[in-house]
Amino acid sequence: MKKVTKKITASKKPLVLISNDDGIESKGIYTLAKEISKFAEVIVCAPHTQQSAVGHAITVSSPLRATKIFKDKKFFGYAIEGTPADSVKLGVRNFLKNRKIDLCISGINQGANTAINIIYSGTVSAATEATVLGIPSIAVSLGSFTFFDFVPAAKYAAKLAKLVLKNGLPKGTLLNVNVPAVAQSKIKGVLLTRQGKSDWKDFYEVRLDPNKKEYYWLVGDLILSDKTNDLDHKAVNENYISVTPIHYDLTDYKMLDELKSWNIK
Amino acid sequence: MKKVTKKITASKKPLVLISNDDGIESKGIYTLAKEISKFAEVIVCAPHTQQSAVGHAITVSSPLRATKIFKDKKFFGYAIEGTPADSVKLGVRNFLKNRKIDLCISGINQGANTAINIIYSGTVSAATEATVLGIPSIAVSLGSFTFFDFVPAAKYAAKLAKLVLKNGLPKGTLLNVNVPAVAQSKIKGVLLTRQGKSDWKDFYEVRLDPNKKEYYWLVGDLILSDKTNDLDHKAVNENYISVTPIHYDLTDYKMLDELKSWNIK
Repeated sequence: MKKVTKKITASKKPLVLISNDDGIESKGIYTLAKEISKFAEVIVCAPHTQQSAVGHAITVSSPLRATKIFKDKKFFGYAIEGTPADSVKLGVRNFLKNRKIDLCISGINQGANTAINIIYSGTVSAATEATVLGIPSIAVSLGSFTFFDFVPAAKYAAKLAKLVLKNGLPKGTLLNVNVPAVAQSKIKGVLLTRQGKSDWKDFYEVRLDPNKKEYYWLVGDLILSDKTNDLDHKAVNENYISVTPIHYDLTDYKMLDELKSWNIK
Repeated sequence: MKKVTKKITASKKPLVLISNDDGIESKGIYTLAKEISKFAEVIVCAPHTQQSAVGHAITVSSPLRATKIFKDKKFFGYAIEGTPADSVKLGVRNFLKNRKIDLCISGINQGANTAINIIYSGTVSAATEATVLGIPSIAVSLGSFTFFDFVPAAKYAAKLAKLVLKNGLPKGTLLNVNVPAVAQSKIKGVLLTRQGKSDWKDFYEVRLDPNKKEYYWLVGDLILSDKTNDLDHKAVNENYISVTPIHYDLTDYKMLDELKSWNIK
């Protein structure tokens, strides 16, 4: 009898769905899953391959396929041949359809998702899709493409995950977290931030293929046009963890008032 | 001399960039371009093929290609082998790089882009990308997949385009327009609206391929969870043209206050 009780207790651990946009083989998702597994049952549903800058794409015109992935000799999760949003939707609607999912975490992304980058981000879109499906959700990114210590970010994700499991989140709201790419000891603290304002300074390199036909390759830098203290990118640049609550009500309420004076009819 | 003056006058017509997500061969973009050409110089930069539900994807890891398209024996525009956002960015940064673009219009999409659909919409993402690049912008959709009279929508787009050319739009704000799929005479008027709230009632059909391997195909309906009068989908359902100002500051300011009481540090 004792054993049965134990089993029931074990299954009462929160169920956390983990996804990302760097693909199921990335180090970021592995470190995150390992950390969250310390207090939760984790199921990974993530794209099979790298899907950066896919935005909130969802596959409607073609079918999806999925493969079971094993790591450390154990079942790790489902690799989906689709986008981050596809991975979450297929996980929720199919692989976990009879389970209550307590939380979704997307990440840990290699590269910050701050300022205008949020709208292009596959990492954020995976978390947004979970939010759309009614699951409290967090997106976590590490502010560098060349720094590979995901442990501080995973540890903070675990801390925030527990807070969200305890407090919940309003319907339609998710948390976008960016962790500076420095050692744990260099992180100065955590700041609540707004999405930063920024512009792209970008252009297309025009190249010629071997048949002398032109092709175009995007080259660009993000220019931060607002350096107010409480902005996400500024916090990360100054070695703070940034936490921004975001939502997907895109209505510009201020402009709604202004438009009343236009003769739009 | 007179001829030169005339030429200068002609070139002072506003320059309008037109894009979409249904592809450059769609009827919606053709009808729109024709209508806008009556008062503006129009350049089309649109995906070569249908790109629905791609969200705000942008191609960074691979090159883009473009082909000149001719219609009615005249140059019509550039067909880009990429997403809607790619098409706008490549148009602005490359094909029109030395020109001042006065306005971007994306559409006319076949199918409404209201409520939660806005976040998946390639039509809206093309207009959003233009906004990010500093160009006033409008997304236009027709509320049906099976009604093909784009003329009423094109005529309203032209009216609103002139208003935007006159009044401008604040940096970071665009207009999302949805036109009911009915004859001009049945349209009741124009309403200023907010983005609707909605949920998905969807699932994946599990099928077997000829090798008995599973694949998954999304099947779903949008459930409108809020039926307040000033919402986009309700306006369109009741045969009004819906105009919603949207932006891409995703910060949830209300939650930002609430998070101050959490122990997030």
